[in-house]
Amino acid sequence: MRDYSITIIENQEKKQKPDPNQLEFGKHFTDHMFIMDYTEGTGWHDPRIVPYQPISLDPAAMIFHYGQTVFEGLKAYKTQDNRVLLFRPEKNMERLNMSNDRLCIPQIEEEFILDCLKQLISMDQDWIPSAEGTSLYIRPFIISTEPYLGVAASKTYRFMIILSPVGSYYKEGIHPVKIFVEREYVRAVAGGTGKAKTAGNYAGSLKAQEVSEKLGYSQVLWLDGIEKKYIEEVGSMNIFFKINGEVVTPALNGSILEGVTRNSVIQLLNHWGVPVTERRISIDEIYESYKKGLVEEIFGTGTAAVISPVGELNWEGEKMVINDGQTGALSKKLYHTITSIQNGNEPDPFEWTVEVKPNC
Amino acid sequence: MRDYSITIIENQEKKQKPDPNQLEFGKHFTDHMFIMDYTEGTGWHDPRIVPYQPISLDPAAMIFHYGQTVFEGLKAYKTQDNRVLLFRPEKNMERLNMSNDRLCIPQIEEEFILDCLKQLISMDQDWIPSAEGTSLYIRPFIISTEPYLGVAASKTYRFMIILSPVGSYYKEGIHPVKIFVEREYVRAVAGGTGKAKTAGNYAGSLKAQEVSEKLGYSQVLWLDGIEKKYIEEVGSMNIFFKINGEVVTPALNGSILEGVTRNSVIQLLNHWGVPVTERRISIDEIYESYKKGLVEEIFGTGTAAVISPVGELNWEGEKMVINDGQTGALSKKLYHTITSIQNGNEPDPFEWTVEVKPNC
Ligand SMILES: Cc1ncc(COP(=O)(O)O)c(C=O)c1O
Ligand SMILES: Cc1ncc(COP(=O)(O)O)c(C=O)c1O
Repeated sequence: MRDYSITIIENQEKKQKPDPNQLEFGKHFTDHMFIMDYTEGTGWHDPRIVPYQPISLDPAAMIFHYGQTVFEGLKAYKTQDNRVLLFRPEKNMERLNMSNDRLCIPQIEEEFILDCLKQLISMDQDWIPSAEGTSLYIRPFIISTEPYLGVAASKTYRFMIILSPVGSYYKEGIHPVKIFVEREYVRAVAGGTGKAKTAGNYAGSLKAQEVSEKLGYSQVLWLDGIEKKYIEEVGSMNIFFKINGEVVTPALNGSILEGVTRNSVIQLLNHWGVPVTERRISIDEIYESYKKGLVEEIFGTGTAAVISPVGELNWEGEKMVINDGQTGALSKKLYHTITSIQNGNEPDPFEWTVEVKPNC
Repeated sequence: MRDYSITIIENQEKKQKPDPNQLEFGKHFTDHMFIMDYTEGTGWHDPRIVPYQPISLDPAAMIFHYGQTVFEGLKAYKTQDNRVLLFRPEKNMERLNMSNDRLCIPQIEEEFILDCLKQLISMDQDWIPSAEGTSLYIRPFIISTEPYLGVAASKTYRFMIILSPVGSYYKEGIHPVKIFVEREYVRAVAGGTGKAKTAGNYAGSLKAQEVSEKLGYSQVLWLDGIEKKYIEEVGSMNIFFKINGEVVTPALNGSILEGVTRNSVIQLLNHWGVPVTERRISIDEIYESYKKGLVEEIFGTGTAAVISPVGELNWEGEKMVINDGQTGALSKKLYHTITSIQNGNEPDPFEWTVEVKPNC
């Protein structure tokens, strides 16, 4: 633990909170934010919680030119007895440092940042909505700030955490989504940045997303960048297939994100005795199984949507309708179990939740 | 042409200019910058030249999270008779719009932006250094500014141009550089963003760059992301090989940047009657030619370095020393010809240069 303490500047004028029934994803932000700066030689310094406000940067700041940046996404939930829970936050801190490593950004002290995060949430806990499906989305991120146009790692960085009360990620709620299997564009390739949670991966995905939305699909399913044959993941979700009683999901191959929800789903399935395998899965295999009537369920997993059943998969014009376009039993059970653990409505056998104590 | 005019707010306090003999690349910026904003529904609006100053953004601005951004790089040169020349700037405007398309950023009006750029340079023309090898580096860039955490194209953008007086890009000047052939990391893959000038491509390259620098190499040579066999380009340069009297360079395959210098070199070689081919080139082919003593020269091409001779290429520990580590005759001739055209010291048979008239 560092010997410095967090400076706190409280917002004197609290903002009006959005209507909890009208919450859109990532549009409203709370009263405070966390900031900490990094300077080569000094390390991370000046951790502080300040009123949510614009930040000022030199136009030559490297983030604007070479995109050296990483982020995380997790949530805080309000329980019925008014406690505040985080879901496996240490996993996000760990992944943040893994992303930092890939992007040549200095490591953060995971425990210290988790403490800062708790303190920030504690200050803004009135912002955590309590209606079903709602939560407080937490966005830690690091940007490179040195004003320099050479292509090199920045010598200064800014770490920030902002908070946003959210409803469901998908406008359709937990209803099944239609997914388009992408053939032209590629998200990531082994040796690239696919494994890291970094801006460029998402920027590159917008074009395919736009094309598929025009065709009536809400997300794309990425295939591997080499053979365009093996299934990788969806826009911001990992993907699972239930085929003939068994569950399969693409193995962590270096180009997909190691989702926290993915890991939790695998643990739950193991716990329930449902066979689950992480391996390479080709889109042809899925199509063949589909033709034989063996594809029982498909679902995406991610912090934003938790479990997102797939009702239709479009592969080169072939529309595979899954489970009659309805949410499957396993998807429902996973969604119910995970959200119930997150909300403190059910026991937490894996000790996944971490409580944020008031005024911690 | 738009019916709006550019607002100009002049800097009252001019900054001190850096020592022209100590110019580093991209560290100093001039007195003014150009800004223009985009809002969905309105289009691009409020073009203005204002004092160079920090910009203020919401911490949720999409640039910080999903990296939707593009940039360009070109230069202005001062001639001996004090005129100011740009080198093929319309190519950069064209490429900017091509990058915009890939990144789902709205198109800019190329001619109008070129006018704005000239006006900005004209205001800050005292900043253009005149010593040999120096110039004014021009960095147009567009960032996504909407404060929203959903993965989608931003509804607002900011276009900016900043200017930086520069010396040589490489500390070694025009001396040959040592290049490391990268095997582990990948820059881009067909279907990805490699063809576009966008931040994520550079963020992803830092790790390989860092590793190769530790081994004593100044840049990496990227191989294709699929077979890791075919030559793509260097960090911020395209690459050419002179083998047994013929020049070859990787074809534009969708994953490398379409360099303006690359295009100019090909035109010059054609003009001189030197055989030049754009095609797929494997690293094995280079190694075999090298063993036979046929690799006469290797050089990189880019706006920053113009022509950068390669003195050594390290491929899996095999050190290929090119032309005894000296600058070859063709590299020298190309460097001399291009810089002389850029500086107005030699005739410009291709009409590549565009003059910036005073107070245009
Ligand atoms: C590309 C990508 N894949 C998968 C996921 C799912 O990861 P997690 O379950 O940790 O939220 C996310 C994001 O949140 C993502 O951005
Ligand atoms: C990746 C990359 N390749 C090649 C080049 C060379 O292009 P140009 O000659 O237009 O400067 C650049 C940059 O400037 C670059 O960033």
